[in-house]
Amino acid sequence: MTRFEEEKKRALERLQQKGADEEVAALLEKINCFNEFFTTSSCSGRIVLIWLPEVGAKRDARFIGKWHRPVGTADVVVAMGDVRSSKSGDVWLLAQSPILHVACRSLEKATMLLRIAIESGFKYSGIKAIGKDTGKVMVEVMSTERMDVPLASNGKLFYDEVYLDFVVSKANFMLSRGKEKLQRFECRLHELI
Amino acid sequence: MTRFEEEKKRALERLQQKGADEEVAALLEKINCFNEFFTTSSCSGRIVLIWLPEVGAKRDARFIGKWHRPVGTADVVVAMGDVRSSKSGDVWLLAQSPILHVACRSLEKATMLLRIAIESGFKYSGIKAIGKDTGKVMVEVMSTERMDVPLASNGKLFYDEVYLDFVVSKANFMLSRGKEKLQRFECRLHELI
Repeated sequence: MTRFEEEKKRALERLQQKGADEEVAALLEKINCFNEFFTTSSCSGRIVLIWLPEVGAKRDARFIGKWHRPVGTADVVVAMGDVRSSKSGDVWLLAQSPILHVACRSLEKATMLLRIAIESGFKYSGIKAIGKDTGKVMVEVMSTERMDVPLASNGKLFYDEVYLDFVVSKANFMLSRGKEKLQRFECRLHELI
Repeated sequence: MTRFEEEKKRALERLQQKGADEEVAALLEKINCFNEFFTTSSCSGRIVLIWLPEVGAKRDARFIGKWHRPVGTADVVVAMGDVRSSKSGDVWLLAQSPILHVACRSLEKATMLLRIAIESGFKYSGIKAIGKDTGKVMVEVMSTERMDVPLASNGKLFYDEVYLDFVVSKANFMLSRGKEKLQRFECRLHELI
């Protein structure tokens, strides 16, 4: 067994244990069927409510809501309930693109995957690292859909119902575009052969 | 003259003609001093006000404000003046990361550049394309700082003064973090030798 095959075995065991979002499970399975590829992490795209002590201080961030499906304004209002009493930090609503990390056995296969990803709409995709000894290439598949909207700061809420409805509808729209791109990507995987 | 050198010559002529943002001019010059690299496009990070007929319909987007420097709330209010009378489409305030595209003569040099970029804080950097015949490798240098906040829809403004102050201060903070990362990156370019 080569090192790549050993790493793939471990990655598949982790995936088996942890599972994946329902919307990417079939896609991951298809990618992992190829000998030249394996997935190391994935998210099908999500809408999150996050509490931050300051911008970019991700280490101390705390999720107060996380959805891989379209949300209703009521979902957000309920989740925000916890925050109203918090007098410090900011709360943001984020819409996040699907993201996949795929290990590729060779540079040639990595560039094939990258091209298909970009052509399927994942325009922020790129090769992130190339193993010096192993030749293993890590590709990140990511799209441009994203929204980062501050909803509260130091206990003060910034939104009214109209604004929240608008933000939630845009976030849901971005989520659905991400899922469409995942489907487009999945349909083109046969080109990797 | 190799094809890489010819392309570099043309890229430098374009840069000479068009110029670059003040904050990246010195950085571009340093990168372009290396025989193994040349820059093809750049932005030092910016805050923009953009009018969109719908999410993602970039082709029909129209900039109504664009700043490579910190903005004041008043700048935004003045720029929004044009929109109040517009009864269709959405207006978003975006804070955008610095972005550089760098052509590299070899994969080895591209991975060196990529590593330095990521370690300088440009965590969304990646190799975007590898020339089949030429071996030229395109690296995108990009950071995670980003904000996308809807400010108006179909003529209705979503913000009050407090919210706009908050959004503008966060956008300015992201802009300054991007500039810091550019400096960190510039300081490490000597490692490319």
